[in-house]
Amino acid sequence: MAQRRPVIGVMGGSKASPDVAALAERLGEFIAQRGWILLTGGRKQGVMDAASRGAKRAGGLVVGVLPDTSWARASEHLDLGILTGLKDGRNLINVLSSDVVIACPGFLGTLSEIVLALKHNKRVILLGFELGADFEKYRKRGQLTHAASPEEAVDQAAEAWRAFS
Amino acid sequence: MAQRRPVIGVMGGSKASPDVAALAERLGEFIAQRGWILLTGGRKQGVMDAASRGAKRAGGLVVGVLPDTSWARASEHLDLGILTGLKDGRNLINVLSSDVVIACPGFLGTLSEIVLALKHNKRVILLGFELGADFEKYRKRGQLTHAASPEEAVDQAAEAWRAFS
Amino acid sequence: MAQRRPVIGVMGGSKASPDVAALAERLGEFIAQRGWILLTGGRKQGVMDAASRGAKRAGGLVVGVLPDTSWARASEHLDLGILTGLKDGRNLINVLSSDVVIACPGFLGTLSEIVLALKHNKRVILLGFELGADFEKYRKRGQLTHAASPEEAVDQAAEAWRAFS
Amino acid sequence: MAQRRPVIGVMGGSKASPDVAALAERLGEFIAQRGWILLTGGRKQGVMDAASRGAKRAGGLVVGVLPDTSWARASEHLDLGILTGLKDGRNLINVLSSDVVIACPGFLGTLSEIVLALKHNKRVILLGFELGADFEKYRKRGQLTHAASPEEAVDQAAEAWRAFS
Repeated sequence: MAQRRPVIGVMGGSKASPDVAALAERLGEFIAQRGWILLTGGRKQGVMDAASRGAKRAGGLVVGVLPDTSWARASEHLDLGILTGLKDGRNLINVLSSDVVIACPGFLGTLSEIVLALKHNKRVILLGFELGADFEKYRKRGQLTHAASPEEAVDQAAEAWRAFS
Repeated sequence: MAQRRPVIGVMGGSKASPDVAALAERLGEFIAQRGWILLTGGRKQGVMDAASRGAKRAGGLVVGVLPDTSWARASEHLDLGILTGLKDGRNLINVLSSDVVIACPGFLGTLSEIVLALKHNKRVILLGFELGADFEKYRKRGQLTHAASPEEAVDQAAEAWRAFS
Repeated sequence: MAQRRPVIGVMGGSKASPDVAALAERLGEFIAQRGWILLTGGRKQGVMDAASRGAKRAGGLVVGVLPDTSWARASEHLDLGILTGLKDGRNLINVLSSDVVIACPGFLGTLSEIVLALKHNKRVILLGFELGADFEKYRKRGQLTHAASPEEAVDQAAEAWRAFS
Repeated sequence: MAQRRPVIGVMGGSKASPDVAALAERLGEFIAQRGWILLTGGRKQGVMDAASRGAKRAGGLVVGVLPDTSWARASEHLDLGILTGLKDGRNLINVLSSDVVIACPGFLGTLSEIVLALKHNKRVILLGFELGADFEKYRKRGQLTHAASPEEAVDQAAEAWRAFS
């Protein structure tokens, strides 16, 4: 699968402040500009929707792994919706299907995705926020990093992808 | 979501005779030529692999919803792999995520997908085989049809897609 | 696990006629009288609820594997509810967790459980109905049988359980 | 469902030091002595197995929600095994099905269960360890507490159960 395009999972709150939404939208844009596939939780709200909008505008391929069984709550910017009906159970699928995970600020759902991503040996990049001492071990081994900007996040993602492709 | 591309789920046996594989490959090709997205179970075997090969050769977008947590058994023809780790539980996701389901000859896994597709009100097309009296009700209402060739299957799929888009 | 109690999965329609409900209730009763654990889909409707009521009245242990994330739609006769939030995805769990599956009359959900049970090499007993030619192969090998009464169904289940315990 | 027995989910590492295993075993014992149902991840290793052993010895009802599709790796102390085949996806089911969650020391799997439990408004008790600043909010509202001993943990669980039953 050497030549497939990397899948970048963007996680984050289902509610997002204007600042966080703007951050996620730029992140989506940069992901698309690199030629990568964007994967989100797929709903038309919060970080999911903002990142999808940014990627779509830049001509990227946008995939949403929805917790639902229908399109009713899906972002309008998806090229492909995976309807799982799994509710939060779909978080594991998001993580497993992503080559690199970039987390924007969020809540417990986002935190559960970060934890699952670390558990499944995914490279995780925290964009615009930090986690505390419970996660020190993963920072030390370089699996978990912080990025101050979307540009920095995609640079780190590019490096991570090169390392295992 | 009026302008998104339809997702055609191709189901069928994880083992396929040369004839069935050839059928699935042509089906994948026709799906791609229509500009539709092909969704399969994603593994490098049987109908999944053959349909993916056909669609890929024709320049289509190929999505595999894998039962696995890794790429080890994935078809080489996927543009995108959704790693579910759900084993047969992913069959429901395949069905929910497909706008139309085309079933090639298979076994109990395929049959379970047909049943789930009917349950979730999906249009199901049987390519190259028939089902018995237990399914008469769905034939009568036009939800379940038979296609004698890949050409006929995609024609029926096109009609089904027009009906609800 | 030689000495654990067998788990008998009772499947069937979420809507049940008075006759089918009475059948399921007696079946639940007989299962409990044998000292077996009853496993159903857990909701307070149709075959699930009737079988649970019968088993509970006879002092049995009643487990419901619910499609929901809450108790709102659960049968009142459950000793234990497994809340999956998986909707129809929980059907696979029901099947995997049952040592023997007894199916009462139902619809596509029930049919999907029968198919999944056969796929996972479970012994399946059809109580009060038959399936057509698509299932002949499983009848021939004795994996799928018909029972005319709840008594006959539990006798067949007892024999199946003896065979692999 | 007012009169059903509470289900106490015990989470914790799939590897456990002798000290942690002893802690979990006593916890299982106390849960059983209260007449509660013990729910664990079901495998014959770590905290799951130790808690199950303790509860079983005290005559309790022990339920394991297994990540597997077979009994091969199940604890010998289960009365009932729910075979999910969901791997880590079953963690959400454990959480949803538990009235109260008690977490023993563990790793990322345990942390993901704690996070999911908080997200689904479950009362979570940390037995023998603490979490850092990322979880302060849940401590403040009393949803997340620390217990120094199994006795204290079951006392806290009893109080939580009284509050919502």
